[in-house]
Parts: sequence; C-alpha cells; structure tokens
Amino acid sequence: MSKVRVAGFSVSLDGFSAGIEQSLSDPLGKRGTEIFQWFFHTRSFRSMHGQEGGSVGGIDDEFAHRAMDNFGAFILGRNMFGPVRGAWPDNAWKGWWGDNPPYHAPTFVLTHYEREPVVMEGGTTFFFVTGGIEEALALSKKAAGSKDVKIGGGVSTVRQYLKAGLIDSLHLASVPVLLGQGEPLFQGLDLHALGFSVTDRKDSEYATHLTLEKV
Amino acid sequence: MSKVRVAGFSVSLDGFSAGIEQSLSDPLGKRGTEIFQWFFHTRSFRSMHGQEGGSVGGIDDEFAHRAMDNFGAFILGRNMFGPVRGAWPDNAWKGWWGDNPPYHAPTFVLTHYEREPVVMEGGTTFFFVTGGIEEALALSKKAAGSKDVKIGGGVSTVRQYLKAGLIDSLHLASVPVLLGQGEPLFQGLDLHALGFSVTDRKDSEYATHLTLEKV
Repeated sequence: MSKVRVAGFSVSLDGFSAGIEQSLSDPLGKRGTEIFQWFFHTRSFRSMHGQEGGSVGGIDDEFAHRAMDNFGAFILGRNMFGPVRGAWPDNAWKGWWGDNPPYHAPTFVLTHYEREPVVMEGGTTFFFVTGGIEEALALSKKAAGSKDVKIGGGVSTVRQYLKAGLIDSLHLASVPVLLGQGEPLFQGLDLHALGFSVTDRKDSEYATHLTLEKV
Repeated sequence: MSKVRVAGFSVSLDGFSAGIEQSLSDPLGKRGTEIFQWFFHTRSFRSMHGQEGGSVGGIDDEFAHRAMDNFGAFILGRNMFGPVRGAWPDNAWKGWWGDNPPYHAPTFVLTHYEREPVVMEGGTTFFFVTGGIEEALALSKKAAGSKDVKIGGGVSTVRQYLKAGLIDSLHLASVPVLLGQGEPLFQGLDLHALGFSVTDRKDSEYATHLTLEKV
C-alpha cells in the first residue's frame, strides 16, 4: 500500500535538521552541509546530480538509494524549493537543481502564492499548491498511485505533516555534529505520543541511520 | 591536569536526558530507564550496585567504567540526589543508592537549604552546598586534587555548568529511543558556540557513544 514517507533526512546530535540563514549560497543554511556528509559521498547522490563515482554498496549508499526510490510524488515546502519569498516575481526560479531535478515525478510545492506549473526535464513537474498541506497530500497520493509519497522537506514542512499525523515512516540520519543553531526537528513534537518507535538502526562511518515507524 | 567532566549521560534521539515526573519510584522520570539500557547490562554498572555478572569487555562496559573512573569528587543537583523538595524535613533521605553509594568520594549536592554533611559507607560523604554552582565546583576541585571532577547530573545541573563554560568534556550515550517528553539537554544551548566538537564516536548495540570536547 502506498505510504507517506520522510527519508534521507539528517538531524544533528543537538537536534537541528538545517542551519540558520538559508540563502542562495547556503540552501541548507549555515553549516547545513555538515549534516549531509553521509549522503554526498554515495554513488546514489552523485548519480542523482549527474556526477560520476561515489561509494556504493555501503550502508550510506543503501539509505541514499532508498531515500529516492519508489516515490510517485514529492511534496516540498516553499523554502526547500528556493530562497525566493513572498509573491513570485516571475517564473525565473525553477528550484536549486538545474534543468533535470532529481525527482522525476510530480512535485508539489507548498506556497501561499499561485503560480503555473513548471515542466522540467526528466519527468519532474513542479505544481504550486496554495490550499495547504492536506490538499498537497491528496494531490500527491492521486499522482503517486501505488507508489509512495515523499515529504521532501524542509524542516517546517516535515513538522507540519508529523503534527497532523499524516506521516507513516521516517528515515533519519543522526549525525555526530553540533550545529548549535538551526531549525530544530523535534522541539515541541511528541513523536512517542504520535505513535512512532525506532524500528531499525544501522551505523555507518558518518551517521546512525534510524527508521521510525508507527507500530 | 584535573578536568571537569560529564560522563555516562544518556540522551534520547529526540533530545531528552530524563523523563517527566521524577518520583521515588521513577528516579529518572517516566520511561527514563529506557535511555540507560546501554548502562544497566554492563558489569561496571552491576558491580557499582553490588550485583554480580553483567557484560564485560564491550563498548558499553568500557564507557560505563570510564563514567565512574578517576573522579576525586562529584557534583549532583538536588533532584538527582532525591525526590525531596524544599527545606530538608529531617536527615532521613540519604540518596537513592543505599548505605554504600557508588561515588566513594566527596559528593557535593547543590541545594538552597542548609544541611549537615552525611558520611556514608565506602568513602562517600554528601556535602550540601548553598552557595551556587561555582562554589560547589571550587570545593570539588579542592577535594579532587589531581583527579577529575564529575558533574553527575541531573539535566538542569549539567546545563547550568555548560552555560557557565565550566565543563571540559562530555561523554553522551545517544540512544535510539523517542521519549516524546522529558528534560531536554540541548534546547537553547549552543554547544558549538561554547567551543565543543564531537571528537569520538563508537557504536554499540544499545547506543552511540559520543565524546564532546573543547578543541
């Protein structure tokens, strides 16, 4: 059955899933790249971005692969889609990922400002949803069919879907980094009360990969 | 040189180092024992509490041993010492640990209420310090001599010493448990700005053991 999943989401030891002050030069916020080192070195990540090489067959690559596998639709928050705020000034911004984004499926962007869909290369179309998280999920489920829906991020979007009880499972990469400041993932969320338990844990050189499911 | 250390301190995936509602029957708060499973099975823990058996030679036992080794004095918050609040009604409460506590050294208890020292078996004497965390640290350093001082807990006490910049190193056991509620360790603390980095990481079946030091 189709599931709603978060996957490939990093969290620092002190609980942050992004740094502060996101900008064009810092899509993950300041020092945000430090919590994705487990991801960047994998072949899955590199091939996703048109690069060659990368490590393969290890735990990190396994989770990196799963983090983009079997999804029929994606949901992204406005800030994960880009640094543009407020009304769309024009159609110039088409995401951080170039002409061929790594989604290859309908991708629904949460926004308060209407915008026409943007068809990209490789099967990704960005749809802009102004009706809120439940509308975006309904559209995503319909688009995904029997495949899963991925809540891609960022932190605020994941938290909204968690609070609403709409997420079935999460893969978190817990990394031994102290960001000190950033966007807290867990603060004020009671994942135990929401029904989640840690059902799997695997350690790599870079991260502890944890699977959280409702059991 | 003598150091001020936190060691054998657990933190849940969602950032809690104790459960809610500490009481006589729940010294670690509700579900607090779930984050110390890495500790309870070790020979170091069991022998500390006069029990036989326990696992030995593994990563957990190594950290359990280090968590009580080479300390010449301990500092405990009032709530780690016991569930009694306010003025001491009498001298009946002598800690959670029976006649022979696992400290075997001068142990300074932070409190707002004066009380005479309590001499226990095995070398532990509880001293009650009303002058604040810096006074307790000065007394502890004097008592410890060339050995280290351990900030034993609880969460609030560790946080106070961290904020004041008085801790040199921490050993944290990061455990794959979602407490959901409890006493947050990191919230509002910027350990990166305080100069800490993760300098070591070792995984056991139960926990990821992380060493944080000022580098």
